[in-house]
Amino acid sequence: MSVARIGLLGYGTVGAAFAALIDERADAIAAASGRRPEVAGVVRRAAGDFDDVLERSEIVVELIGGTEPAREWVLRALAGGRHVVTANKQLIAQFGDELFDAARQAGVQLRFEAAVAGVVPVIRVIQESLAATEITKVFGIVNGTTNFILSEMASTGATYAEALVRAQELGYAEADPTEDVGGADAAAKMAILARLAFHAPVSLADVSFEGITEIQPDDIAYAKELGLSLKLLGVAERLDAGVSVRVFPCFLYPGHPLAPVAGPFNAVMVEAPAITEITMSGPGAGGPETATAVLGDVVSILAGKAPVHEPRERLPIVREASSSFYLHLEVADRPGVLAQIADVLGRSEVSVRSVVQRGHGTDARLVMVMHEGPESNFYAALREIAPLDFLRASPRAIRVIEEEFV
Amino acid sequence: MSVARIGLLGYGTVGAAFAALIDERADAIAAASGRRPEVAGVVRRAAGDFDDVLERSEIVVELIGGTEPAREWVLRALAGGRHVVTANKQLIAQFGDELFDAARQAGVQLRFEAAVAGVVPVIRVIQESLAATEITKVFGIVNGTTNFILSEMASTGATYAEALVRAQELGYAEADPTEDVGGADAAAKMAILARLAFHAPVSLADVSFEGITEIQPDDIAYAKELGLSLKLLGVAERLDAGVSVRVFPCFLYPGHPLAPVAGPFNAVMVEAPAITEITMSGPGAGGPETATAVLGDVVSILAGKAPVHEPRERLPIVREASSSFYLHLEVADRPGVLAQIADVLGRSEVSVRSVVQRGHGTDARLVMVMHEGPESNFYAALREIAPLDFLRASPRAIRVIEEEFV
Repeated sequence: MSVARIGLLGYGTVGAAFAALIDERADAIAAASGRRPEVAGVVRRAAGDFDDVLERSEIVVELIGGTEPAREWVLRALAGGRHVVTANKQLIAQFGDELFDAARQAGVQLRFEAAVAGVVPVIRVIQESLAATEITKVFGIVNGTTNFILSEMASTGATYAEALVRAQELGYAEADPTEDVGGADAAAKMAILARLAFHAPVSLADVSFEGITEIQPDDIAYAKELGLSLKLLGVAERLDAGVSVRVFPCFLYPGHPLAPVAGPFNAVMVEAPAITEITMSGPGAGGPETATAVLGDVVSILAGKAPVHEPRERLPIVREASSSFYLHLEVADRPGVLAQIADVLGRSEVSVRSVVQRGHGTDARLVMVMHEGPESNFYAALREIAPLDFLRASPRAIRVIEEEFV
Repeated sequence: MSVARIGLLGYGTVGAAFAALIDERADAIAAASGRRPEVAGVVRRAAGDFDDVLERSEIVVELIGGTEPAREWVLRALAGGRHVVTANKQLIAQFGDELFDAARQAGVQLRFEAAVAGVVPVIRVIQESLAATEITKVFGIVNGTTNFILSEMASTGATYAEALVRAQELGYAEADPTEDVGGADAAAKMAILARLAFHAPVSLADVSFEGITEIQPDDIAYAKELGLSLKLLGVAERLDAGVSVRVFPCFLYPGHPLAPVAGPFNAVMVEAPAITEITMSGPGAGGPETATAVLGDVVSILAGKAPVHEPRERLPIVREASSSFYLHLEVADRPGVLAQIADVLGRSEVSVRSVVQRGHGTDARLVMVMHEGPESNFYAALREIAPLDFLRASPRAIRVIEEEFV
């Protein structure tokens, strides 16, 4: 199997995570693409020779960040016939026209999924799934730092300054958070999404943006009483008059699909007449997530065309599962009923999470929720409970998902 | 520009929508892929000559449904070197191994995005974005008919039978709803997702499934009191012992990302250690949505490699927008204040949606929400309000998204 040589520009958090991931997933990448990737060389700001790494690579992965020397190196890689993958939103947002021109002229690919919403595949979906669809609006939460801060303010009543400190402690905000909290980071991402969605040369300078530094805790508190939640929203719209691209803090009514997106998560919605809307959400950043998005782009370049599925895992099918259950019993209203049910459940090692008794006389019923456990235990108990003489109807059992998210 | 000849098998709701969409979007497809598509021939169950259409096509789009003659025709198309796009979940779920083998042997693409969750791009994301990522779990709501019925039962208290009739009236359920409400449709989709996520030869027969026909309104009502919502869930998991693929009705706690998915919508979550989780949601079916998903696959086949963005729309950037606003005013507690504010807003043609007065004396404040209107009107009013002598602090304005979804 041939080796695919990758030149890596930058070796910070994401660069190191990417190099580790290439190693760890080399077999899977070979299976998916037919080629085994290998890091052929690394250039950092302070060390390494770009020309040498370029010479030894067929794909260049730019994770050095900032605009220079990233811009110059990416242009030289493209001109030299190398496919390029980058996670650099400012590069694409500010120098998109120049870079796309260079890629088209050289006949190579320029991929940048990780530049917007991390591993949430919004670039691929807009550029490929919806390539021929007339998109009318793309909007969402594209900055995890500010979404974390706003979530923290809403849930704890903290001030902006307090929530920022908390975000910095958890690694969700940088020491200098200006670009995130002022809206410039989100603006760059929205410029990229608007460009792709509307096939127009939108750049960072075309985006109006506001940040969240002026938000007061009592704005959030009052709005919460009205059921509203506050998000920093990016909105790119195709209007009769042209294209509008903006970033601003904004309240959402509770029915809105973006309202429940909390913490450092990102979420993007795409609207078009033919599709109503698609919503995509997930973690916005983080080393492994960004590296995974970059890797997806690399694999697509290596695979060249659409993968045809080939089963390579002979995994047995497992039918036994572990679940939590809700159990609804219509029972006779007499003493000892709950004790008898609890005894059966206990002997089958089913643990009860909550019990509510409802109704009286001929309407008496028990509504129970169990802790998670082997389904076979629960069903064994159910087989013992079903024939008990105090039941007025068949028991009804429904699984419950216990885990909570974000 | 060369023409791409498409042979269309089936001309029902989706087939007709697809043919219309190809016409309508021909220019956009040519721009995205470099080739102009054209329907070269149509075969229906009752009319048309498959061999003739095959002869005249380079891509075959199968929208005839069912397993025969769909299976035979798709196999013959693949063997004849044609790329195939299908929306047929039963075909892939039941005959996947045979079909993928045929595509690999012929060196052609077999795409089927529309087979699962309609236009929600879950197949592409799993097969391409996450091609080299170790996926541990794929789960979600993959049947819009049952999700509509359960949403209807929860919001109106209707019985299963009543909600089914409503779904049939609205076109969300077929006259014979067995495959949807019994869980077989969701099971086929989960077999496909499990196959792709785990690279394993999972087929429909490997999936345990239950439907929703036994659900009682009072189960939903009691659970609602506990904050739980009921969904028909498909779950495919990689376990130590192998793969588990199941479909069952299930309660979700309110924090769960799938809990707010209501009506005929679909939503799929993908979990992997490197990405935490990605959630994708959107309309599950419908002619235009399914046709759009099929078209995305066709465009990918035509484009062959990743598109390099080229701006082709010279759209002006619009900075004026229409918004709804929240306005927070710290005011002196004296008569006439509201009247004066209302007068300024009225003269600027800003319409008030709600006003709440809070606090007394030195803590008095007005919290207002406006109806949507030109931002310039609102800001003009704000410039008049800001210097008024009864304000104790600068006014605070934040946009509000009014539209509600689903």
